Amino acid sequence: MGEYPSILLENAVNQFSSLPSVGRKTALRLVLHLLRQQPSEVEAFANSLTRLKHEVKYCKQCHNISDEDICPICSSRNRDHQTVCVVENVQDVMSIENTGQYNGVYHVLGGIISPIDGIGPKDIEIDSLTERIIPEQIKEVILALPTTMEGDTTNFFIYRRLSALSLPEPLRITQIARGVAVGNELEYTDEITLGRSIVNRVAFNG
Amino acid sequence: MGEYPSILLENAVNQFSSLPSVGRKTALRLVLHLLRQQPSEVEAFANSLTRLKHEVKYCKQCHNISDEDICPICSSRNRDHQTVCVVENVQDVMSIENTGQYNGVYHVLGGIISPIDGIGPKDIEIDSLTERIIPEQIKEVILALPTTMEGDTTNFFIYRRLSALSLPEPLRITQIARGVAVGNELEYTDEITLGRSIVNRVAFNG
Repeated sequence: MGEYPSILLENAVNQFSSLPSVGRKTALRLVLHLLRQQPSEVEAFANSLTRLKHEVKYCKQCHNISDEDICPICSSRNRDHQTVCVVENVQDVMSIENTGQYNGVYHVLGGIISPIDGIGPKDIEIDSLTERIIPEQIKEVILALPTTMEGDTTNFFIYRRLSALSLPEPLRITQIARGVAVGNELEYTDEITLGRSIVNRVAFNG
Repeated sequence: MGEYPSILLENAVNQFSSLPSVGRKTALRLVLHLLRQQPSEVEAFANSLTRLKHEVKYCKQCHNISDEDICPICSSRNRDHQTVCVVENVQDVMSIENTGQYNGVYHVLGGIISPIDGIGPKDIEIDSLTERIIPEQIKEVILALPTTMEGDTTNFFIYRRLSALSLPEPLRITQIARGVAVGNELEYTDEITLGRSIVNRVAFNG
């Protein structure tokens, strides 16, 4: 007998402890909690994961997670479609939406440039951002990436790419105000600071 | 649009945040992590849960989680089958096994008496414990329940039930030494303290 009294139990614990910041003791507690639920509830838990993976879509315009080909923000008539806020991931869209301070649309990169993790410009949605500018008549791109080295690198890369475009009229490139503490992820920033940093955005100076 | 950009995403987040001590932000991070994995990996995660729920067994003798009708501890020839350690749950068996200080068998109650949670003696495996004493010629019952009010109540209830049995020879009823800090759960006790408290067990004085 190994550490666990059952292989089935051990497998489930292994799966949970493969999740970020879930240790083996926590994983065991979560699995034993599920084991105490009704079979239908465990079934619902498992199904929600497989359905999500198989059926989820990504908005063809902004690349946010969506149930439709075009997400509700991109298809809304009440949003300013000439202002695009560039964010790293889905959580960041939700965080900015929660501030209630932003009425433009988004562009979800799906990551940031990080040589140490082997993530280059081609691995994230930068080309698709530059391809949106002319057809959507975008007037302003707001860079809302984390205030980290990787965020700065990505900001600079996007700034250079957008500056190199030949456009009928000049594009405003801004970044959210550095009210966000350096080194912090957007999703952990309080809503007031994050909302203010959107309102107080400043011209990106390269 | 609600808080989440996708109903499928929201469903999965709801499932994760129904787990103990998993908040909605953590749930979202876990779900988005899974979403970045291969479909086969998400499938494996989901399957491990449904298989566990449908196929897991409980040992007919000690009620521990098991892949067989009788668990490896109860079927081992190298264990002392006349000494039974009574614990609240599966984690406690694993904690005591990890000390390497105990060579008897177990009896997993599957809970402790807790009037505030509506858990009475009939809801946990107390009857099946008393029924084991004569046929298995058990000589000692070690009470290893948490050092909480509920643990004390359950200890006392079991002590009275066992004392009322008419047995061919007297049964030794002990409890683990109170080296375990009052108010603590067994699974969070360090192995040295827990191991010593098994070795230094004392007669249960009612």
